[in-house]
Amino acid sequence: MTADTPDTPLLDRISRPADMKSLSDRELRQLADELRSETISAVSVTGGHLGAGLGVVELTVALHAVFDTPRDKVIWDVGHQCYPHKILTERRDRIRTLRMKDGLSGFTKRSESPYDPFGAAHSSTSVSAALGFAVARDLGGVVPEGLGDAIAVIGDGSMSAGMAYEALNNAGHLGKRLIVILNDNEMSIAPPVGAMSSYLSRLYAEEPFQDFKAAAKGAVSLLPEPFREGARRAKDMLKGMAVGGTLFEQLGFSYLGPIDGHDMDQLLPVLRTVKARATGPILIHVLTKKGKGYGPAESARDKGHATAKFNVVTGEQKKAPSNAPSYTRVFADSLLQEAAGDDKICAVTAAMPDGTGLNLFAERYPGRCFDVGIAEQHGVTFSAALAAGGMKPFCAMYSTFLQRGYDQVVHDVAIQRLQVRFAIDRAGLVGADGATHAGSFDVAYLANLPGFVVMAAADEAELRHMVATAAAYDDGPIAFRFPRGEGRGVDMPERGVPLEIGRGRIIAQGARVALLSFGTRLEETEKAAEALRARGISPTVADARFAKPLDREMILSLAENHEALITIEEGAIGGFGSHVAQLLAEEGVFDHGLKYRSMVLPDIFIDQASPADMYAVAAMNAADIESKVLSVLGIAQIGEARA
Amino acid sequence: MTADTPDTPLLDRISRPADMKSLSDRELRQLADELRSETISAVSVTGGHLGAGLGVVELTVALHAVFDTPRDKVIWDVGHQCYPHKILTERRDRIRTLRMKDGLSGFTKRSESPYDPFGAAHSSTSVSAALGFAVARDLGGVVPEGLGDAIAVIGDGSMSAGMAYEALNNAGHLGKRLIVILNDNEMSIAPPVGAMSSYLSRLYAEEPFQDFKAAAKGAVSLLPEPFREGARRAKDMLKGMAVGGTLFEQLGFSYLGPIDGHDMDQLLPVLRTVKARATGPILIHVLTKKGKGYGPAESARDKGHATAKFNVVTGEQKKAPSNAPSYTRVFADSLLQEAAGDDKICAVTAAMPDGTGLNLFAERYPGRCFDVGIAEQHGVTFSAALAAGGMKPFCAMYSTFLQRGYDQVVHDVAIQRLQVRFAIDRAGLVGADGATHAGSFDVAYLANLPGFVVMAAADEAELRHMVATAAAYDDGPIAFRFPRGEGRGVDMPERGVPLEIGRGRIIAQGARVALLSFGTRLEETEKAAEALRARGISPTVADARFAKPLDREMILSLAENHEALITIEEGAIGGFGSHVAQLLAEEGVFDHGLKYRSMVLPDIFIDQASPADMYAVAAMNAADIESKVLSVLGIAQIGEARA
Repeated sequence: MTADTPDTPLLDRISRPADMKSLSDRELRQLADELRSETISAVSVTGGHLGAGLGVVELTVALHAVFDTPRDKVIWDVGHQCYPHKILTERRDRIRTLRMKDGLSGFTKRSESPYDPFGAAHSSTSVSAALGFAVARDLGGVVPEGLGDAIAVIGDGSMSAGMAYEALNNAGHLGKRLIVILNDNEMSIAPPVGAMSSYLSRLYAEEPFQDFKAAAKGAVSLLPEPFREGARRAKDMLKGMAVGGTLFEQLGFSYLGPIDGHDMDQLLPVLRTVKARATGPILIHVLTKKGKGYGPAESARDKGHATAKFNVVTGEQKKAPSNAPSYTRVFADSLLQEAAGDDKICAVTAAMPDGTGLNLFAERYPGRCFDVGIAEQHGVTFSAALAAGGMKPFCAMYSTFLQRGYDQVVHDVAIQRLQVRFAIDRAGLVGADGATHAGSFDVAYLANLPGFVVMAAADEAELRHMVATAAAYDDGPIAFRFPRGEGRGVDMPERGVPLEIGRGRIIAQGARVALLSFGTRLEETEKAAEALRARGISPTVADARFAKPLDREMILSLAENHEALITIEEGAIGGFGSHVAQLLAEEGVFDHGLKYRSMVLPDIFIDQASPADMYAVAAMNAADIESKVLSVLGIAQIGEARA
Repeated sequence: MTADTPDTPLLDRISRPADMKSLSDRELRQLADELRSETISAVSVTGGHLGAGLGVVELTVALHAVFDTPRDKVIWDVGHQCYPHKILTERRDRIRTLRMKDGLSGFTKRSESPYDPFGAAHSSTSVSAALGFAVARDLGGVVPEGLGDAIAVIGDGSMSAGMAYEALNNAGHLGKRLIVILNDNEMSIAPPVGAMSSYLSRLYAEEPFQDFKAAAKGAVSLLPEPFREGARRAKDMLKGMAVGGTLFEQLGFSYLGPIDGHDMDQLLPVLRTVKARATGPILIHVLTKKGKGYGPAESARDKGHATAKFNVVTGEQKKAPSNAPSYTRVFADSLLQEAAGDDKICAVTAAMPDGTGLNLFAERYPGRCFDVGIAEQHGVTFSAALAAGGMKPFCAMYSTFLQRGYDQVVHDVAIQRLQVRFAIDRAGLVGADGATHAGSFDVAYLANLPGFVVMAAADEAELRHMVATAAAYDDGPIAFRFPRGEGRGVDMPERGVPLEIGRGRIIAQGARVALLSFGTRLEETEKAAEALRARGISPTVADARFAKPLDREMILSLAENHEALITIEEGAIGGFGSHVAQLLAEEGVFDHGLKYRSMVLPDIFIDQASPADMYAVAAMNAADIESKVLSVLGIAQIGEARA
């Protein structure tokens, strides 16, 4: 095979699962090999999640061979392992558009295919979703593709989330026929943490791999009635039973496994038997290797979790040279600076040590860094109690994932006015991960909580100062948000200096129109201002820094001294602009007229593209800001080109 | 004893736990008896959560006798069982002000006492909190009372929440000394559901109560080193070990129990031993009876979960006669009407069948009603999948608890535009349960989600129509909110009639000022309008019905035809008023002047009181609206009395 076009004679005949029904088991094995090559080749062109897909190539083939998709609902947890699934389900022709503008989503997506019965991207939703389909089936729900079996495929990392436990607990109680495949690769994004992970390891610790095949064959004849007796014979395959019940059995599931998830001779007979005979909820414990079958991925520290485009032969990634440090890196370095002088500073991440930059903190201060697993609810309340216990916790989460801990932010942090510092990464539109990962709502859902301080960094130097501000602040919860990607390349201060709470800054003094930015749209705002100056309009440009508390004095002064005031923020309605509008209304500024506009994310979920393209869709780039000013001032734009 | 003043000679000598240190075990038993009487007496005067407190009287005494509070942190999950704890911790003199304005909170509350190290009200946060204190202690955190042991007391119902599992998983991994007391009363608010509950029952099913005392005494000599061997001798007290590990042990905890939580001869030695010898995380499984020791509570269906004031001798509750059906009841009845003609309608509650009125639905349609346990995350995604499977799920949750499922609302419902109907009870300020239960944020956090329809009922007839609207709507997610308590007593339509989406209604046509209400403040708005008419000002009154989509035509017309426009809503900033302001700004209405004001909940957490008193604090009653109008119109209010 070559990098661009692997040789895939069998795969070339398959465009949907129905085409696989006539294949022999031997051919299915070959199909899996070809599917692996095609997956590697596709991701080498697009970048994306590689390791997870490679780990489930055989499982993907086996599921589609045995079950009747899309009538049977296969629900991939997180969905980042679904590239092989997409190749087999009518989307091979577009697989090299993964995560690109107008291309295939990097996750499962209902609007993309009937073979994606439930979209995902955040983890640990699959068991809830599968249970919903199972119940709908039994209640006579009607959907075009029909309702058959419901099968959740969930990784061991996703099992650390409480939501998965809630779903298992409910499923065990309801007792409906439901299949959960635990894809245990001992590796979600980061090395797994938590007691559940250790438990899973113990479950198969004594079972050498080479015994699996015999065990699986033994199992074929067993299920479901002679299950208990036969299990003992089958070399402890149903290991839990022999020792008094696995955790899953205690929650009401039948437990089957562990089996080798790369061995079709185990996968096929087990899945066929389960399909033929399962009655209630059953959990199949499958062991896989993330990155399986591609050396560079297998040997990478993160097992090829998410890669840039790469050379298939060498595995070398083709990353664009970076001009400035990433915001994540600036946060991480700044936090290290603060922690060096303050041993009360500690850090909490929910399974994202690398993504949040806290891996650096963990290296330097292992005793003060806590990876709680995919467990934002617990992570937030744990942080609240650390604060109550006299520590200074930085709770570092992506904006979109902090949504998982929202009630805890309200109930445990805000109401108790505990001094948790929220470092909110991936604020605003994030690019290739698309709508599910957009950090659109945090300003709205935090700034209306009494006692909260909410900041957004306009550039990487500001971020450093905000880390220092958060470290120094001692009067309640405080949050600062910053985007994915590189900084502007501004001069970095040696050390962060705490900002005055609730004080913005004037970037450029002008007249007629004031542009008030909150966050990193400041760069586009400044570009717009420059373009406007070329037209003879000299806008005032200001950086609000704080959505809460607002810089009332600055904002009222801007309103008083300008014909128009326009706010710009990387967030949905309800956030910064809404707080400004409320201030202006209450102060009677609107009574006598002010050309006020608030540029927020539009009322749509924006599909993946480059961040710049996504902001173009959102109409929030420099040209859009310029255009807004002209329109508000009533200046004709005839013949003007838009970016 | 009499109802008002039970005879409590020993309790009279105790005002804080330090006073208990000299008591003998016999005296501690007597103290528990007196504490029970005092608790019953107090709640008979105040109303409130009775059953939960009665179930932990002995445990409360034992914990404060054995541990060194407030240095040791006892964290009561939910906190509604804390009345006996408050009596023992310097608050007996105010115990008959429970849940009243300016009185004691009905939950634990940090600002109230150093003996409440972590407040609560929502469930399942205690293990996270205790772990935070344990880690802070080991990292050298400094708090005024010192940092000793961290002890979470969590009910079996609270164990159905994923958050508790996340915390156990993390605690088992970290291995710090931490004590979790599982208060297993087989009864949270509703009868427990879920596989975990069945599991807990099995754990002690074979263990007759009378053996506990001997077992507990046997355990005293064992911990922690001879633990494993001795356990087997001690009549399977450490039952998990003997059968291969309880679920808790699989998560890294030592498991001790079950023991009889009403027997001080078991509680005291077990707690003393744990205090003396525990190293890592340990779970003590305690069996109690909700309502223990008070006949009327023990025999009540909900075991005296939450009661009105009552007669101590008869148990008869003194409820005010009701003038109109409760909103909850109207919702429940209306949903039954819709479900009678549509077998696709089903309902989901998260452990609140009675509170949401879905107990009626469950009686009539048991196969279509799902109580998922305290599991809002799962409940929302499960609902989303039911919708994907062709059903019409009504997901009924309190506003404040829906916060627990916020990410699922965004990620699984909104992004996929699935037709989940959210019935949001307890919207706005809720009275005696205070700030933790306020439904303040839902409009803000739902109305900025693309594709969502968000309604609020102005009265109980409107609620009936909104249930019908939600049942009929088929273009994405839809939510309707309504408050706690009784309706206005308006005429009820026989059947609900679907409303036109995004269409408000004019209640009274007037001039100069338009009052635009969203939700049940309409009643106060109408009162204000009447008072204003007596002054010669005749406001227009409108009911928006929809925060999303807005009735643009009606709102722009109100703005055009009035000097002033004032919105009123029972929610925080970022919601209805912010959407109106955005519309007015974008349409250029502010350019030439409009006296616009938005009355929202103020930027404070409001302590418990009657709803009317809480809305007085919020300045959102009729007099406040009237006053706002006069001030906006520049009419002097000299000498005016405020309500």
